[in-house]
Amino acid sequence: MSLPRIAVDAMGGDEGVRVMIDGAAEARRRHDQFQFLLVGDEARIKAALQDHPNMRGASEILHCDDVVSGDELPTKALRRAKTTSMGLAVNAVKKGDAGAAVSGGNTGALMAMSKLALRTMPGIDRPALAALMPTLGDNDVIMLDLGANTEADARNLVQFAIMGAAYSKILTGRDMPRVRLLNIGTEENKGFDRLREAAEQLQEAPGLDMSFEGYVESDKINRGEVDVVVTDGFSGNIALKAIEGTARFVTDLLRNAFTSSLRSKIGFLVSRPATELLKHHLDPNNHNGAVFLGLNGVVVKSHGSASAGGVANAVTVAARLLEENLTQRISAGLAELQARDDAAFDNSAAK
Amino acid sequence: MSLPRIAVDAMGGDEGVRVMIDGAAEARRRHDQFQFLLVGDEARIKAALQDHPNMRGASEILHCDDVVSGDELPTKALRRAKTTSMGLAVNAVKKGDAGAAVSGGNTGALMAMSKLALRTMPGIDRPALAALMPTLGDNDVIMLDLGANTEADARNLVQFAIMGAAYSKILTGRDMPRVRLLNIGTEENKGFDRLREAAEQLQEAPGLDMSFEGYVESDKINRGEVDVVVTDGFSGNIALKAIEGTARFVTDLLRNAFTSSLRSKIGFLVSRPATELLKHHLDPNNHNGAVFLGLNGVVVKSHGSASAGGVANAVTVAARLLEENLTQRISAGLAELQARDDAAFDNSAAK
Repeated sequence: MSLPRIAVDAMGGDEGVRVMIDGAAEARRRHDQFQFLLVGDEARIKAALQDHPNMRGASEILHCDDVVSGDELPTKALRRAKTTSMGLAVNAVKKGDAGAAVSGGNTGALMAMSKLALRTMPGIDRPALAALMPTLGDNDVIMLDLGANTEADARNLVQFAIMGAAYSKILTGRDMPRVRLLNIGTEENKGFDRLREAAEQLQEAPGLDMSFEGYVESDKINRGEVDVVVTDGFSGNIALKAIEGTARFVTDLLRNAFTSSLRSKIGFLVSRPATELLKHHLDPNNHNGAVFLGLNGVVVKSHGSASAGGVANAVTVAARLLEENLTQRISAGLAELQARDDAAFDNSAAK
Repeated sequence: MSLPRIAVDAMGGDEGVRVMIDGAAEARRRHDQFQFLLVGDEARIKAALQDHPNMRGASEILHCDDVVSGDELPTKALRRAKTTSMGLAVNAVKKGDAGAAVSGGNTGALMAMSKLALRTMPGIDRPALAALMPTLGDNDVIMLDLGANTEADARNLVQFAIMGAAYSKILTGRDMPRVRLLNIGTEENKGFDRLREAAEQLQEAPGLDMSFEGYVESDKINRGEVDVVVTDGFSGNIALKAIEGTARFVTDLLRNAFTSSLRSKIGFLVSRPATELLKHHLDPNNHNGAVFLGLNGVVVKSHGSASAGGVANAVTVAARLLEENLTQRISAGLAELQARDDAAFDNSAAK
């Protein structure tokens, strides 16, 4: 079976066209059925394609001159949805020219354009941004929302849980991903009313394809004991960046320590394979590809500073979600929730 | 000059009486003018004191049988403020029998008891919990609030900034500590209205003893570029625990990597002094002592699992804040803010 092709915003990201094309080519070396629509400056895309014979016959170029800049306000970028590489990549999904879009550009602009072009799925009030983070366990943990919505009410959080669980099933292969709500304690009385309400609703829906396990504190996110962490965009962004920043902080300290004396330098050289393993495990490129969940189509955000390998991972995430039909899985979860609500209504009406 | 003595809740903390007494004794070895009121089970305190001749003549015991447990609801603990070691330690500050209290017990209960006994300072609406975290720079960074208030409005945040700056001046010796508000971006339009309002108010008060520098994202907290990070208790708790959890996560990964082969084990042994340096820098005991700011008296929360060295650090923090008159410094900051508000009022009245 051939996959729908993937639209790549070749102009997004801090590293320019080459890293996006190199990344797409690397993804295609891993999975030779991938097909691409490469959106951006034709001359530069063609130049970058010179190095990749495996992309011949597997990619079409959609030329445009306009680019969304990294610090542009989403509202301003939105006006150029029909002329920018980001806007055209998203629009290709809307028109059915591609099955998914990948961009390394401005997150807020990508979110705004995706919402406008693809609209939210039936039953979803607000889409959410979900990212992968490393754990001590075998699989990455998914956290959402990470900033698409500064605030979220109980209903939003329940929908995020369903979307996150559908994504995690594809990622981990688990039938019942372990889902928790981010809170500042695990006791029932902690945090906000909206968290307690969301927890109640998730507990009362045993038909959902998830194992809802209550609250998680942010020091337990990466122990490998939870598959999906659900929160509002403000708290999620705070937690994500605190985790990223601290991983960098500790590795910086480690580098300082290892270069502090001749002895420690020698020790470092000897133990290099071990520290390379650590570096590999923590490298954001190996967890690249944040997904906008809840839209009528798959849009993946690659990190602005991702390497070609990182871009390849983001492309692979997009292809995987297409292949496994993420959107349909989310719909199934929502239908289950709706059936439960209807049953509750019938019960109370019958009384 | 002799310092007012420090009341130590000898029963609080996961590690029991001995670690609290060992910690107080270690603090006194560093500063031989420290005097203590040790509150708790007399027989067990006396047994622990056997090992510490330096505590003779420097400590008085206040016996009680009752202890606040770690998982007790603050409202329940509050009813036993007059009979528990925690309550009596705080009460000693209220009565002037001690200048400061240190406890390793239940944080919520300690907050509730401290608020009830000591009341908030004039001009402060809500006290806040402030902790120290390691950075790449020379000084620890102070973050508040960490959970005393789940929510905070602009006025609360401004008061937190003043309290945090007063604390940081004592800690770092800087005349103008660098203060930032925690947010999910550094652009002006990011986050909540309350953050924008607080930022405006802090920008408009140039007489304050701080350098207010806008927003900080949670991946920049520990770069050594900010002295005080101000936020509400929910976000602060999320950020703090994400940082603590990730530091532990990375060191766990490092340990796994170093023990993964004979070669890496040898490398580890050779570079041990370097990794010990890292361990020392990240050890929570070396940053122990969270402070309840904004009360009429100094109360310090030692981590429940702190070592004797950690407890000694918490005791030293308490003594330092007493010596440098934290409460008076906060009052001065509040007076400055009030003077500005009065001037603004006079200006608008004169128009």
